[in-house]
Amino acid sequence: MIKRIGILTGGGDCPGLNAVIRAAVKSAIMHYGWEVYGIIDGFDGLINTEKMFHMDMSSVKGILPRGGTILGTSNRGNPFKFPVKEGDEIVTKDLSGEILKNLLENQIDGLIVIGGDGTLNIANQLYKRGANIVGVPKTIDNDLSMTDYTFGFFTAVNTASEAIDKLHTTAESHHRIMIIEVMGRDAGWIALNSGIAGGADIILIPEIPFDLEKIVEKINLRRERQSHFSIIVVAEGAFEKDRDKQYIEKAKNEGTLPRYGGIGNYIASKLTEMTDMDVRTTVLGHVQRGGSPTPFDRILASRFGVEACDLIAQMKFGFMVSLNGKDITSVPIEKVINNQKLVDPYGQLVETARRLQIEMGD
Amino acid sequence: MIKRIGILTGGGDCPGLNAVIRAAVKSAIMHYGWEVYGIIDGFDGLINTEKMFHMDMSSVKGILPRGGTILGTSNRGNPFKFPVKEGDEIVTKDLSGEILKNLLENQIDGLIVIGGDGTLNIANQLYKRGANIVGVPKTIDNDLSMTDYTFGFFTAVNTASEAIDKLHTTAESHHRIMIIEVMGRDAGWIALNSGIAGGADIILIPEIPFDLEKIVEKINLRRERQSHFSIIVVAEGAFEKDRDKQYIEKAKNEGTLPRYGGIGNYIASKLTEMTDMDVRTTVLGHVQRGGSPTPFDRILASRFGVEACDLIAQMKFGFMVSLNGKDITSVPIEKVINNQKLVDPYGQLVETARRLQIEMGD
Amino acid sequence: MIKRIGILTGGGDCPGLNAVIRAAVKSAIMHYGWEVYGIIDGFDGLINTEKMFHMDMSSVKGILPRGGTILGTSNRGNPFKFPVKEGDEIVTKDLSGEILKNLLENQIDGLIVIGGDGTLNIANQLYKRGANIVGVPKTIDNDLSMTDYTFGFFTAVNTASEAIDKLHTTAESHHRIMIIEVMGRDAGWIALNSGIAGGADIILIPEIPFDLEKIVEKINLRRERQSHFSIIVVAEGAFEKDRDKQYIEKAKNEGTLPRYGGIGNYIASKLTEMTDMDVRTTVLGHVQRGGSPTPFDRILASRFGVEACDLIAQMKFGFMVSLNGKDITSVPIEKVINNQKLVDPYGQLVETARRLQIEMGD
Amino acid sequence: MIKRIGILTGGGDCPGLNAVIRAAVKSAIMHYGWEVYGIIDGFDGLINTEKMFHMDMSSVKGILPRGGTILGTSNRGNPFKFPVKEGDEIVTKDLSGEILKNLLENQIDGLIVIGGDGTLNIANQLYKRGANIVGVPKTIDNDLSMTDYTFGFFTAVNTASEAIDKLHTTAESHHRIMIIEVMGRDAGWIALNSGIAGGADIILIPEIPFDLEKIVEKINLRRERQSHFSIIVVAEGAFEKDRDKQYIEKAKNEGTLPRYGGIGNYIASKLTEMTDMDVRTTVLGHVQRGGSPTPFDRILASRFGVEACDLIAQMKFGFMVSLNGKDITSVPIEKVINNQKLVDPYGQLVETARRLQIEMGD
Repeated sequence: MIKRIGILTGGGDCPGLNAVIRAAVKSAIMHYGWEVYGIIDGFDGLINTEKMFHMDMSSVKGILPRGGTILGTSNRGNPFKFPVKEGDEIVTKDLSGEILKNLLENQIDGLIVIGGDGTLNIANQLYKRGANIVGVPKTIDNDLSMTDYTFGFFTAVNTASEAIDKLHTTAESHHRIMIIEVMGRDAGWIALNSGIAGGADIILIPEIPFDLEKIVEKINLRRERQSHFSIIVVAEGAFEKDRDKQYIEKAKNEGTLPRYGGIGNYIASKLTEMTDMDVRTTVLGHVQRGGSPTPFDRILASRFGVEACDLIAQMKFGFMVSLNGKDITSVPIEKVINNQKLVDPYGQLVETARRLQIEMGD
Repeated sequence: MIKRIGILTGGGDCPGLNAVIRAAVKSAIMHYGWEVYGIIDGFDGLINTEKMFHMDMSSVKGILPRGGTILGTSNRGNPFKFPVKEGDEIVTKDLSGEILKNLLENQIDGLIVIGGDGTLNIANQLYKRGANIVGVPKTIDNDLSMTDYTFGFFTAVNTASEAIDKLHTTAESHHRIMIIEVMGRDAGWIALNSGIAGGADIILIPEIPFDLEKIVEKINLRRERQSHFSIIVVAEGAFEKDRDKQYIEKAKNEGTLPRYGGIGNYIASKLTEMTDMDVRTTVLGHVQRGGSPTPFDRILASRFGVEACDLIAQMKFGFMVSLNGKDITSVPIEKVINNQKLVDPYGQLVETARRLQIEMGD
Repeated sequence: MIKRIGILTGGGDCPGLNAVIRAAVKSAIMHYGWEVYGIIDGFDGLINTEKMFHMDMSSVKGILPRGGTILGTSNRGNPFKFPVKEGDEIVTKDLSGEILKNLLENQIDGLIVIGGDGTLNIANQLYKRGANIVGVPKTIDNDLSMTDYTFGFFTAVNTASEAIDKLHTTAESHHRIMIIEVMGRDAGWIALNSGIAGGADIILIPEIPFDLEKIVEKINLRRERQSHFSIIVVAEGAFEKDRDKQYIEKAKNEGTLPRYGGIGNYIASKLTEMTDMDVRTTVLGHVQRGGSPTPFDRILASRFGVEACDLIAQMKFGFMVSLNGKDITSVPIEKVINNQKLVDPYGQLVETARRLQIEMGD
Repeated sequence: MIKRIGILTGGGDCPGLNAVIRAAVKSAIMHYGWEVYGIIDGFDGLINTEKMFHMDMSSVKGILPRGGTILGTSNRGNPFKFPVKEGDEIVTKDLSGEILKNLLENQIDGLIVIGGDGTLNIANQLYKRGANIVGVPKTIDNDLSMTDYTFGFFTAVNTASEAIDKLHTTAESHHRIMIIEVMGRDAGWIALNSGIAGGADIILIPEIPFDLEKIVEKINLRRERQSHFSIIVVAEGAFEKDRDKQYIEKAKNEGTLPRYGGIGNYIASKLTEMTDMDVRTTVLGHVQRGGSPTPFDRILASRFGVEACDLIAQMKFGFMVSLNGKDITSVPIEKVINNQKLVDPYGQLVETARRLQIEMGD
């Protein structure tokens, strides 16, 4: 029988983390009558148990609308390869045994792990070694499979989409190419969704390598039709056709492209050469990870938190909560990890973009 | 073969209507090469054909982020019972024949009808008499069946949720009961979703008749736990247990309750009597129907518009576009109408609310 | 020499209170090297000294963007007439001596009082009896004199103005009269400013008693010009010409008008009679007191907090900080109290409204 | 006597332009009974008179909340040095005579020119040659003198401040340095105001050349106090002490610094070297020029538009409308131009920032 559970958050920041924590704590304490331990800084808090603390209802007061996570997130990472000082050197050690021991000693009967692919991978390995873990999917990029959406994603789309809206009113008054670089190293979900929502003219995503000629063609076509501006949304991981992705990464590392704002600035410089138009770049960066979650994300996160407790109550360890249509359900973590959900270049959403006359760069 | 299509919007206002229109016009003209006629003021514009106009790409420029509908919406209603002046009297006539004739004469090969239950009912009857109609579901209340969500709904939830957020910061400083009345005559979707998203303490919806004693109990429980305020979200159609719904309606008509703000003010007056606390009421009203659609709603509406054209191209008349999980699909209009989608009092979302310690009033 | 100061907030809630507190605490501790005591629940915390607590830099961490006040606000009020239980009765006592004594005993060398007319009146009386008090003006209604603006006001205008924007998009699609009731019992600043900002057609403020005939005239004029909707912004304290203000208050107390939404619903019912149009009412209520302060208000509040410390350092007790153009300055509290700043019916801002073709109801 | 006026907008985009136009048109037509001509694309529209059009009340319908300008803005610039094709060459000509002639021939009795320093300079020269011009100040950067504020500025501050808020929630969860680059080539008003409003730790403005050592010192001081992140707001025109401003410009032109995001990325690379912390950069760019104006800006712009008509009615040509405290007044354009209003490094606002423990980099 479950008497006490733990909860931790791992990986990058994502609006809605606090909403998951709040829902899980409320459901655990008030519905199930469990004790709840908050674990600070991800898996670190299961190695260094001073980072555990007893949570009550007041621990989660007022956190629903807040970005960030009250539990913090690990900056040192994988407990299977944990960096430890030995003398003057830093070596990596497998501290997973510590974690299993600490869970046992602290009588944590169930552990809710909220995290992305990396964190869930670790969770799954720990589960296989006997830890009573359930997972909650978390990715700003929406690239986890086996769930329709993840919380935080639409908040990021909202932020990007508002920025595109603002560019629109000013782009129309001037005759300019406006580039906005959004998050998405491997997956173009934020670029694609915010681009459609913001009425972009061109959207460039990692899943569809782009051709600069196609972009210039589109810009010129628009000018012929008296639209003397164009708005380009580009995912940070988008890259040019016939050039490997490493080209951009390499240039960044060599310093010929700035580390941030890389691809946006690259395209800006190219388009300045290729057209006679003024080009301006916006790099949204971490602004997309912050802010108060949208209602959609707060509801989704709250439902995830409640369901995570239900999974523990049902002893469905090794499972992750998931959104399927309108319903919350669950899937084995095993099926989720190492299985990135990318935009299908021939799928419905890209097709919709094309029908809306958005140039996808290919 | 399709050469020319028409498009109209019917019923109450809903953020995202313009996004549907824009997507349909773009897809029709640029992808399919069709001509598009905009029909002003709903079905009225098919009776009085002066209200038809030729649309081109410039007709939909800049409308994506705008609330309202550039096509207007009927205020006279059902063409099967159309109000017509005869001498000094107003009688109702069946003008559906006019519509069928006008569609034919104007060579409208396909008609996109965007509307709610009432409008879709008319659309279905016209379809049965031979009109080449496809439907797009529209309801701010999210109470149409056979589609996971409708556009506009989350924009309304957003507006309500922002208001609840604001009440929170001020409720905490004062010791008050804050009531916020939101839309939802029959269905409590807006109240339930915005209440969960806003962290309400009590949510009252038409699907679960409420007991004032339960509300007072919850307020007192909170005070014992040092939460000296409570936030109540109430759908306009919520009503007291053991009293028929007509009670409220009757009181409004008799003027003992104000026409708007009815149920919110009723509860306020009762709680003022039953507790010694200060009570304040907010009545959001039509603010919920306005504003720029959220990205979620813009994307959904755009996808609906594109799919509506695809249905016409495929000659799938009598069908309505629909959201199913992540996919846009279609269903027979027949199955949608007269089949209101209400909140299930025993469903997952209400259960989630309860787990979050939200009092549902029963 | 100053060594220790206190800080308290009194009266109704207002976005920016936390920003004042934060700025004062930072400036006091880091710039002046003073100790700071936070006083809970307004003057109550100077009677019951258990409500004092030592503040450090961490006390004000993260509060800049938050509505409400971390210090709470009195709900019992005036220490000169403080309600005290004597046997079964509640009598009022003058506890100002207690306050003076407690300030002395706790070695509070300077006290920052943030509040409106009532609170500043008490502050001034205490100052005259020897308390080292400086004031910070606070009113959501902007009706304190001797300062150009107060923080919180533009946040409320923002909230009201966003609501009016939303009504606009939906009013245009339907043919309706939309009424929005905003705060302002005596002063019409919120109604006037949000009405101008939101593009209202009619603005009704307490300073200009209204004539229903004029309102109907304006609505009809608009219809003649093909604007089939009208938006009315009404301050809660607006009242009909040739009827004393008490009429409305009386009707509310008698229950013939609902306590909240009173004047808005009254006008709605009258206009329904006087025109054949549909009327809808929004009552914003306390939503206007909540939410995160706008940048303008955060900056103003921060400057006030810093200046309050400077006044203490300069021993300018009995003075209140004030905004004068771009500069923060100070004025004797004496000159501010009992001197409500109302909208001048013949002033520049009302004249601007009239030039914009806004009907002021007279 | 005035019978007909013209109105034009010049220079960069700025939220509130449409509000000025709307107010001027309404006041001119309805209050003064004048005819109004809209002039497209700034002074270009007075050279090529096909760009003039008759405006009526419907011309300004619905534009109050919209960013951009319905009149467009010149991209070719100064009529005193107007670029004209002569054979294959482009030469500059003085076409001011054309403008004076066209004003006369079109019987424009008064001309409202809305613009920044450049545009007002031209306006003043034309005025000296006899054109009946009044000015309306416009600058997103707030760097025009003789007016407390200009419209658009606080909208830009709002956008920047919201972005900083979002960085805050995410910066706290991670341990990072977050840099946000905002507009301000010469004047640091946006950086200073949004930095104070957003609770920045470090603000760098062109008026105070910065010392990287001071920045690192501040970051380290914060870490000692357990604040493991720092937020830096930097104006695009900020530059390093002991290096002339040209250094950055030169590096941009040489391509060693990217054209946009220059200074932000420069600081990022330096801080990555100088600390062991992760650094992230956001470059807001033109997002700051777009969006719907805030209520403050809509009201200010509306008042400016009304006052501009009053100046024409009073024949106060050569004057510019201006905000002075709460009042709208006017000043000779002569006094405004070539007189940039910079942040005073020793002024009240910078001092407030310092008291709030914000490092100004010197």
